[in-house]
Amino acid sequence: MRRKLRYGMIGGGRGAFIGAVHRIAAAMDGKAELVAGAFSSDPKRSRQSGEDLFLDPARVYGTYAEMAEAEARLPADRRLDFVVIVTPNHQHFGPASLFLKAGFSVVCDKPVTFDLAQARRLRAIVRSSGKLFALTHNYTGNAMVKQARAFVRDGTLGTLRKVVVEYPQGWLADAIELSGQKQASWRTDPKRSGAAGCIGDIGTHAENLARYITGLEIEELCADLSTFVKGRKLDDDGNVLLRFKGGAKGVLLASQICVGDENALNIRVYGTKASIEWHQEHPNELALKFPDQPRQIWRRGNGYDGAEARRFTRLPAGHPEGYLEAFGNIYQEVFRALAAEADGKPLPTDLDFPTIDDGVEGMAFIEAVVKSSRLGARWVKPAR
Amino acid sequence: MRRKLRYGMIGGGRGAFIGAVHRIAAAMDGKAELVAGAFSSDPKRSRQSGEDLFLDPARVYGTYAEMAEAEARLPADRRLDFVVIVTPNHQHFGPASLFLKAGFSVVCDKPVTFDLAQARRLRAIVRSSGKLFALTHNYTGNAMVKQARAFVRDGTLGTLRKVVVEYPQGWLADAIELSGQKQASWRTDPKRSGAAGCIGDIGTHAENLARYITGLEIEELCADLSTFVKGRKLDDDGNVLLRFKGGAKGVLLASQICVGDENALNIRVYGTKASIEWHQEHPNELALKFPDQPRQIWRRGNGYDGAEARRFTRLPAGHPEGYLEAFGNIYQEVFRALAAEADGKPLPTDLDFPTIDDGVEGMAFIEAVVKSSRLGARWVKPAR
Amino acid sequence: MRRKLRYGMIGGGRGAFIGAVHRIAAAMDGKAELVAGAFSSDPKRSRQSGEDLFLDPARVYGTYAEMAEAEARLPADRRLDFVVIVTPNHQHFGPASLFLKAGFSVVCDKPVTFDLAQARRLRAIVRSSGKLFALTHNYTGNAMVKQARAFVRDGTLGTLRKVVVEYPQGWLADAIELSGQKQASWRTDPKRSGAAGCIGDIGTHAENLARYITGLEIEELCADLSTFVKGRKLDDDGNVLLRFKGGAKGVLLASQICVGDENALNIRVYGTKASIEWHQEHPNELALKFPDQPRQIWRRGNGYDGAEARRFTRLPAGHPEGYLEAFGNIYQEVFRALAAEADGKPLPTDLDFPTIDDGVEGMAFIEAVVKSSRLGARWVKPAR
Amino acid sequence: MRRKLRYGMIGGGRGAFIGAVHRIAAAMDGKAELVAGAFSSDPKRSRQSGEDLFLDPARVYGTYAEMAEAEARLPADRRLDFVVIVTPNHQHFGPASLFLKAGFSVVCDKPVTFDLAQARRLRAIVRSSGKLFALTHNYTGNAMVKQARAFVRDGTLGTLRKVVVEYPQGWLADAIELSGQKQASWRTDPKRSGAAGCIGDIGTHAENLARYITGLEIEELCADLSTFVKGRKLDDDGNVLLRFKGGAKGVLLASQICVGDENALNIRVYGTKASIEWHQEHPNELALKFPDQPRQIWRRGNGYDGAEARRFTRLPAGHPEGYLEAFGNIYQEVFRALAAEADGKPLPTDLDFPTIDDGVEGMAFIEAVVKSSRLGARWVKPAR
Repeated sequence: MRRKLRYGMIGGGRGAFIGAVHRIAAAMDGKAELVAGAFSSDPKRSRQSGEDLFLDPARVYGTYAEMAEAEARLPADRRLDFVVIVTPNHQHFGPASLFLKAGFSVVCDKPVTFDLAQARRLRAIVRSSGKLFALTHNYTGNAMVKQARAFVRDGTLGTLRKVVVEYPQGWLADAIELSGQKQASWRTDPKRSGAAGCIGDIGTHAENLARYITGLEIEELCADLSTFVKGRKLDDDGNVLLRFKGGAKGVLLASQICVGDENALNIRVYGTKASIEWHQEHPNELALKFPDQPRQIWRRGNGYDGAEARRFTRLPAGHPEGYLEAFGNIYQEVFRALAAEADGKPLPTDLDFPTIDDGVEGMAFIEAVVKSSRLGARWVKPAR
Repeated sequence: MRRKLRYGMIGGGRGAFIGAVHRIAAAMDGKAELVAGAFSSDPKRSRQSGEDLFLDPARVYGTYAEMAEAEARLPADRRLDFVVIVTPNHQHFGPASLFLKAGFSVVCDKPVTFDLAQARRLRAIVRSSGKLFALTHNYTGNAMVKQARAFVRDGTLGTLRKVVVEYPQGWLADAIELSGQKQASWRTDPKRSGAAGCIGDIGTHAENLARYITGLEIEELCADLSTFVKGRKLDDDGNVLLRFKGGAKGVLLASQICVGDENALNIRVYGTKASIEWHQEHPNELALKFPDQPRQIWRRGNGYDGAEARRFTRLPAGHPEGYLEAFGNIYQEVFRALAAEADGKPLPTDLDFPTIDDGVEGMAFIEAVVKSSRLGARWVKPAR
Repeated sequence: MRRKLRYGMIGGGRGAFIGAVHRIAAAMDGKAELVAGAFSSDPKRSRQSGEDLFLDPARVYGTYAEMAEAEARLPADRRLDFVVIVTPNHQHFGPASLFLKAGFSVVCDKPVTFDLAQARRLRAIVRSSGKLFALTHNYTGNAMVKQARAFVRDGTLGTLRKVVVEYPQGWLADAIELSGQKQASWRTDPKRSGAAGCIGDIGTHAENLARYITGLEIEELCADLSTFVKGRKLDDDGNVLLRFKGGAKGVLLASQICVGDENALNIRVYGTKASIEWHQEHPNELALKFPDQPRQIWRRGNGYDGAEARRFTRLPAGHPEGYLEAFGNIYQEVFRALAAEADGKPLPTDLDFPTIDDGVEGMAFIEAVVKSSRLGARWVKPAR
Repeated sequence: MRRKLRYGMIGGGRGAFIGAVHRIAAAMDGKAELVAGAFSSDPKRSRQSGEDLFLDPARVYGTYAEMAEAEARLPADRRLDFVVIVTPNHQHFGPASLFLKAGFSVVCDKPVTFDLAQARRLRAIVRSSGKLFALTHNYTGNAMVKQARAFVRDGTLGTLRKVVVEYPQGWLADAIELSGQKQASWRTDPKRSGAAGCIGDIGTHAENLARYITGLEIEELCADLSTFVKGRKLDDDGNVLLRFKGGAKGVLLASQICVGDENALNIRVYGTKASIEWHQEHPNELALKFPDQPRQIWRRGNGYDGAEARRFTRLPAGHPEGYLEAFGNIYQEVFRALAAEADGKPLPTDLDFPTIDDGVEGMAFIEAVVKSSRLGARWVKPAR
């Protein structure tokens, strides 16, 4: 491929958080450039955001529908290669299905849709469109998460027995949504966020991370959700017991009332032979523990790392990579796929980014958790 | 009190682990000396153990019954002040009740008895005996655990919302009991350990630690126990959802199949205002986290520590105290009580050691966990 | 400023390391684009590198001299705003002086020149050119380094007494330069690296970091350099005693034979009132230690961070930033300056990037260290 | 040996710190009991201290001279096996030489004497006495320090190149000696402490630790001592460059003005093949770093630990041992020697405690450091 990929963005205007993250991640390796966008449902804000980003005003739109229509008419040498959707949950399905049908590949923030039914419909649309669809469960982009998965796959851990995955945050410990904090407002609003609050926002990251590393499928779960902040309509805390197919057990914690915790996603996986432990806030390290050997700390950027970890490494050892680099790794894989498409080649067989199937799995997880908790914390099997 | 306290020991002979720990802990501050013992059900081993410990052979016994009878006859100036019981669980009730009835105070290893019924009976005996009974839930002896409790009591944390307490170990990940490892043998044997394995052995420590720090009482729990090692008769892993009186929620994990984890007891308590985090393997530190201030690391031995933490501190800051010192702190409190008794004074009102009530609570916890798990992980209220 | 800045690059072609880092850092915030380059002294490699980067072949040059000549002729709407120099040390002065004289601002990798004399000459050229010159001592771009400096400036630390700055690496513990490793080859070659090896390559980073945070100037130093790897011509390890103007003392360690250490730059600064500690490999945290308060861990991305730290923060707390983001922060400041220039406004007064003066200081440090060590580790005053 | 060892103590009365540490350490394993003492130069305080310790008043003395005379007359079955000296530095030589000459073995706190000349004289006395003399450089008693030494001895590290040993404390950052703080008063008083303050008090620990682990001898050193607190007569901070026989280099830092640091003794040793890192405040862990393997964390109490580390381990893995246990390990070795003597057996060949030779070495180190610093930080060879 002899040119940069071109993309447009839906959402992510002034005041947004994740839009800028996507733009940095997509631009990181010099392989893509933003050329169009519908950045806000407020046309003025969308226009201003386009100016901030040095875009051609002709390609900055007031709605995603306008954008889809206009962009679809552009000739091949100006046409978008993909669209990035970074709106709140309830506004994923609309633009995603529209752009897919219009022949654009889509990168979408998580969770994939408003509910499981939508996710299934989107899955059908993705399949029939023949376009790429990527879901930015960004934490799986970390090199040492790749390494963790490699330890499961190559048998280093033996047969898996126990998984403990936690995602504690503290930023919603008070009712900051009442003061108009934009990120808090939509996440605590069932009309925009869906049936779950905390579990949808970050519980799905935990679920995805555990599944990515272990390859295990949840057979049934027992969830106790809480809403600690008075007046809030959605859960802000959840404790979930897990039983995986094949006999492993697990616990998943997600909370946004863990005062003083920032973004402390972490996972431990215990097998018959060894175990791993990884903390998102110190992503360049991975502990590997054996029963009868010194504890090993695998560090990103070393020659001893496995091929998968090395493939997703930009910097030498000791030069910390972080959140953006992991996010960029998701894009890197999307770009590999798009470049193959553009060059008329088959997709690489080792593509490694979350897909619509991960999205459906996540929505099934949310639905099962909410159902279990409403039943008073009874065992429920996710319906995929 | 103008002399060292005198004590005898039941169990703890050659090959035992916890007996030596008790002896070091009891001797640490130069306030007590071991003068008698029935160290093993094997009279020869008991005698040899007595020799190892430089005891008068006349006060080394083949059975605890012999010992109780003989020691009870000794005059006041040679009489034992207390007895320490460090046998497996099924052999706590017998000597404890016998010595209490014979007028001796008792320090007993945990869990207190074989089952809840025994614990209740022992509670009645303790009450009617008028003697002291201490249970060595040693981890609560740590200075920074005292500090954590102080943060709950003085309102620093606000109203408690969430408790996460974990006790992962890995040493029983394989069936080492089959090879005759003594510690493993009795802990995995329902005839000696009781209805629970891992949950009884270390789950009760986690329960006790959480209750000590938070003061919260478990209203109901939902437990999923597992036995991962084939042929083992008791649980070696458990995940428990907790609901506390007053509305806080929690999770308790205990496992002995967490390969590579050593003795990684840890707890996090989240309130409306702040949270704490403590790890047993780094006991001299306590994290205190606020939503809007830098994280604080409280370290043992500093002038800024609270009165309770300072009271249980032997060494200056930066000189690490550990497991034995915390254990010794339990004894220190027992000795304060015994000294008051000996001096004919009322017991200090701030005595701080685990009692028979903690023992009953622990057994009620075990019973509820086992029941819940047998029901397929359903909610059960502990019966105290 | 209503457009992206345009820049060209000298060096940084295929096989280079730091070139890609500069490109990611410069592109990170969507404010600049690479449009020209002389990426290698090998014209073919330069051309291929240009293709990798999707550049117009007409703006990819075989030498920096050609590039300077051709680019200087371009009209304003295509003209480069700045040039980035990422060649080995001995090739900094040539392109830097040429482009400055041709009216281009320059961003240059460190250390600034081959020797102190060159640095002084370059300083004169920068001054007479009226153009911007930035030196990428990237570690000072870290948000928590800004916070550390703020603690010095606002008096939190009191009067400074002691500075300990270390930069241990292990990658040159063996003679890998003999096997043709490109990064090792030029760094160990006095013709390309200058009078110092390790001290020039990373010792200057340590010196710069210490000076940036503390504002202290080295009055005299006593250095003991070593070359542990046989046959190597330059130092690969150095221990330096420091005496600062005003009475503070310090130690600076830099080494490339610290086997197993990766990029463990760290600094501690002790004042009369408090001290700070920062580790580059965990850059999002800064310890602040008082004599009579719990240790404080300041974490990037929080509302409690000072204005300077917040200004250099892209992500919320708990979302780790790393090496590239800090590097990007240097560029962010350069861009602020260039944007002001382009808009015909005065330069912001709070610009925060390393300049030619830092470069001269660094070269004076190198010269003094080498001289001191050659004298057998005697005290030497840096000549600025 | 069929009885507990009997010992007396010189110093360590009410208000002292290290006396209680020695008593706990000596009693820890149930092998020794305190039976006599001259606890203070104030007879009343000595008597009260004896009462605190439940001693026979007849064996509590007003001066060490009285004690030596009286105790020497006791019959074998009551006679002291050894004497522990825990007075300030200037009062080591007197009681040590007196008791040695009277036929008692001696355990003495560090540094061994007031100056080097005294140390040499004491060495002669020890040799001619034929008694045991142990110096409590307690940090070398840590199990993981033993492991570190094993890695040097067994060649794991290869040829040693660099040693960095630090001992930062902050407790003397202000002139607390002026307010009568007892520990501070004598340590900052040249009449009681000797020619050095910080370097004598804790610099010698650092020197001893480095020598113990590496086996390297300091060939010459260059020291820059400071007295930061106004009016103080001795150094409270020192930075020392080291050159070892055989070519290794090093840095030793010791400071008591490092505000907020507690007792942060740590060491790194770099060889051609691997390196180790150990921190006293987390003594149960030892990092072992290779150039091409994951970092290893060796943890005390595991089966994989070497024989030396295992020999000095009381508790299972994950049950933290600390300062007192390491101190107790020094005593454990002294007791092995005394037991052999008592049983008429030759001393074990693997005895592992610091001796008078370590004391002389430490005093030579102090003298060389002070001399070097007085010369303006010039290279000086220790005179042993």
